[in-house]
Amino acid sequence: MPAEAAPSFLVLPDLPPPGERMVLPEDESRYVSRVCRVRPGERVSATDGRGGLAILRVLDRGPKTSVEVESCERARATRAAWVLAGAPEGERGDWLVEKLAELGVTVFQPVDCQRGAWARAAHRHERWQRLAVAALRQSRRRFRLDVRTPLPLDAATAGLPDDASAWLADADGPPASGVPPPPKGVAIGLVGPAAGLSPAERDSATARGFHAIALSDSRLRSETATLAWACWWSAAVPAASNDAGSRLGA
Amino acid sequence: MPAEAAPSFLVLPDLPPPGERMVLPEDESRYVSRVCRVRPGERVSATDGRGGLAILRVLDRGPKTSVEVESCERARATRAAWVLAGAPEGERGDWLVEKLAELGVTVFQPVDCQRGAWARAAHRHERWQRLAVAALRQSRRRFRLDVRTPLPLDAATAGLPDDASAWLADADGPPASGVPPPPKGVAIGLVGPAAGLSPAERDSATARGFHAIALSDSRLRSETATLAWACWWSAAVPAASNDAGSRLGA
Repeated sequence: MPAEAAPSFLVLPDLPPPGERMVLPEDESRYVSRVCRVRPGERVSATDGRGGLAILRVLDRGPKTSVEVESCERARATRAAWVLAGAPEGERGDWLVEKLAELGVTVFQPVDCQRGAWARAAHRHERWQRLAVAALRQSRRRFRLDVRTPLPLDAATAGLPDDASAWLADADGPPASGVPPPPKGVAIGLVGPAAGLSPAERDSATARGFHAIALSDSRLRSETATLAWACWWSAAVPAASNDAGSRLGA
Repeated sequence: MPAEAAPSFLVLPDLPPPGERMVLPEDESRYVSRVCRVRPGERVSATDGRGGLAILRVLDRGPKTSVEVESCERARATRAAWVLAGAPEGERGDWLVEKLAELGVTVFQPVDCQRGAWARAAHRHERWQRLAVAALRQSRRRFRLDVRTPLPLDAATAGLPDDASAWLADADGPPASGVPPPPKGVAIGLVGPAAGLSPAERDSATARGFHAIALSDSRLRSETATLAWACWWSAAVPAASNDAGSRLGA
């Protein structure tokens, strides 16, 4: 796969089959021409955020950059993470979404809890989707974070995949460093809002099979605990099929 | 230790011995009186950020709140983490400092690398120290993050403790989920700037004994990799002596 040769990584709504030509959307045209300064004849990678990865040859430049699809292949995710996140304080949801997308989380499900609701999530949805696309581009992943609208905690936990492993951020649980993250399948991480889950919510989650896991040796802000759970899950570094085969930016 | 009864957690420059009385600084007086609404006779916890933890009885309220020290004990850290962080893009250093402090990192050492320097770190130093204090209060820790001024990478790696274990964020390393974080001693995490370490810097770090460790299955932004390393380290959840004995906010 010549993806290493591609100087830039695009996110497109759809990837046509090999041999087809297309005109890039305005944003991606600008990105290719002005930000990456790709020249005609050079190649770029592109994903649809649903597992597809294409190599595109750039035919011309400008506000309507046209490309020809050289190859296109599709991977299935070998693992997935759903984050059920209580509301943090203030605008801390913005960077949380960005970081979850970078770490390869599958679903971001804001949950409204007894001690905190996502008052502003409705206004942030479009912004969060843009952040998820930008992070996809940045991290060269091929699966985009699915940003959902808030649900009551009960409704969110009722709609989870049956065969998922489920985790509850809780300082009384065993240290995360001693719990291996699941190498495949669906993992679900539940973190309460800034004021924490109520005892009833905690009991309910435990009854539904959520396992307590301690993510640090002290109290974490809600969004930090959410992120720490995602880091724990992401650090398993599974088969390369989940990403576009690039290295850490670091 | 009656710390569970304390409704608030203060950070003070010094903790007088038991039996002494003191007037709280203006900021902490306001925090106790207005934010936490502590009443005379109630108790609060306080740390000096250097391992000390005191229980204070509030004597009165207002802009000059006075307290009496009921007890004061001191812990030594059983483990420490030094983060050597290359410069991320834009203002991403702000929340990085906050999160490292929450996660219990010991030293934040910005490093100037061949492909990126901390142009704005000098202007952020005071702000970062305030963020570290706020995070200490929030996370109820008793060891405050030591925010340092930037050093060239070479100088930073030359000044490290001899017996430390050292780690380099690198997608070619083994997955972090399979590497147990050190339960005690000093651990050092090195993450390159947004554009990455140069090959020479990478080789030099390896020669100095830094072990590669992969923190995710795809490319992470510099500050995300730094945070992921800190999460990996923090998840070991050692003896309770590093914190004030509280639970996850989540």
